Amino acid sequence: MKSHTAYHTFRTDERRAFVRITDLVQAAVDESGIREGMALVSAMHITAGVWVNDDEPGIQADALEWLDKLAPPTWKAPANGVAEALVPDGGDYRHHRGGEDNGDAHLKNLLVHHQVIVPVTAGRLDLGPWQAVFYCEFDGRRGKRLIIKILGE
Amino acid sequence: MKSHTAYHTFRTDERRAFVRITDLVQAAVDESGIREGMALVSAMHITAGVWVNDDEPGIQADALEWLDKLAPPTWKAPANGVAEALVPDGGDYRHHRGGEDNGDAHLKNLLVHHQVIVPVTAGRLDLGPWQAVFYCEFDGRRGKRLIIKILGE
Amino acid sequence: MKSHTAYHTFRTDERRAFVRITDLVQAAVDESGIREGMALVSAMHITAGVWVNDDEPGIQADALEWLDKLAPPTWKAPANGVAEALVPDGGDYRHHRGGEDNGDAHLKNLLVHHQVIVPVTAGRLDLGPWQAVFYCEFDGRRGKRLIIKILGE
Repeated sequence: MKSHTAYHTFRTDERRAFVRITDLVQAAVDESGIREGMALVSAMHITAGVWVNDDEPGIQADALEWLDKLAPPTWKAPANGVAEALVPDGGDYRHHRGGEDNGDAHLKNLLVHHQVIVPVTAGRLDLGPWQAVFYCEFDGRRGKRLIIKILGE
Repeated sequence: MKSHTAYHTFRTDERRAFVRITDLVQAAVDESGIREGMALVSAMHITAGVWVNDDEPGIQADALEWLDKLAPPTWKAPANGVAEALVPDGGDYRHHRGGEDNGDAHLKNLLVHHQVIVPVTAGRLDLGPWQAVFYCEFDGRRGKRLIIKILGE
Repeated sequence: MKSHTAYHTFRTDERRAFVRITDLVQAAVDESGIREGMALVSAMHITAGVWVNDDEPGIQADALEWLDKLAPPTWKAPANGVAEALVPDGGDYRHHRGGEDNGDAHLKNLLVHHQVIVPVTAGRLDLGPWQAVFYCEFDGRRGKRLIIKILGE
């Protein structure tokens, strides 16, 4: 059995961003020399996720707007009446009482999930034709880490 | 260490469907000869998920209706005012501008998640009494692939 | 390759609860003697989840309230008009027709996801500074099992 671990730090210009990392994960697999196994790709922060989706800008813009409706930020005015009604009591997250302003990012992270496992077959990420791996930032503009851990033979 | 990979293609009659695949996953474990390990079960498309849940028709109907409320399709009239309010600006997904009509399936897939890991103990899927593995189709009526990857000894 | 399996049973006093289990997972890693690998932490019931998040009471209270809005229970009056509008047709889940009252717990479980994989590096859970592992109970007050399965070397 072989294992390999790689870390990457992201610092996005925008508070929210999708960063395509398929090549980064493949590079870690190449370094590992593993031909058959699994690659865990996991955010090390609780306000960033990892997802596998199509690299289509419309989907990403749709998803960001939709995540804002399901988990509205309260550090700006709600986008509409539904978003307003979904805001917790008092119009702000309890998490913000300590001075934080990223309560929504924790919930968005929960929806998107913070990790994926990519199967590795014959030394390649075994993804479907439209599957790409993305780092999903919900509270950026500061350095945040991601771990890639590969197990196999 | 041993590894084993199996692929399956699903072509559901309905656009949305739950297909129980616990036996399919166990069959792949049997073929692998692995006694202790992990079985990754992962959709290779971005409009289909995999979940572990009770095989109870009421839960599945509830879940489909609920997913339609949280991630409404716009290729038919919204079910109610809440669904309508949740529809992105202009009443349709940006993803549909290219001619696609499955914008909601991408979001439903995000909610359900596209993969699970089933632990394998003494050669059997180590599931709780009500846990069954399902392939969750959100944009069917065409061939779509699933990968099962087992790692262990 | 080594593998190790541990089971834990939880019986929470409250119907819904977050139980921090980071130490429990680290203890299983210690028992396994595994230095490099992956630890799967997975609920064996379909109304309980596992998440990785900050151990901050405000986040947990926010999340419980938010989950109640997205997946409202119908065994008590909805919290507000949005929650009421999200209730499935007829005001109750189909799953409740058989006498169950935990239809919402199945949906909450779907949102939170029932499992995580924690990377193991140099014998330690390789988590970020604010990442803690929690068992998330949505239908407690009875014994429910969790499996920890570690694979590595």
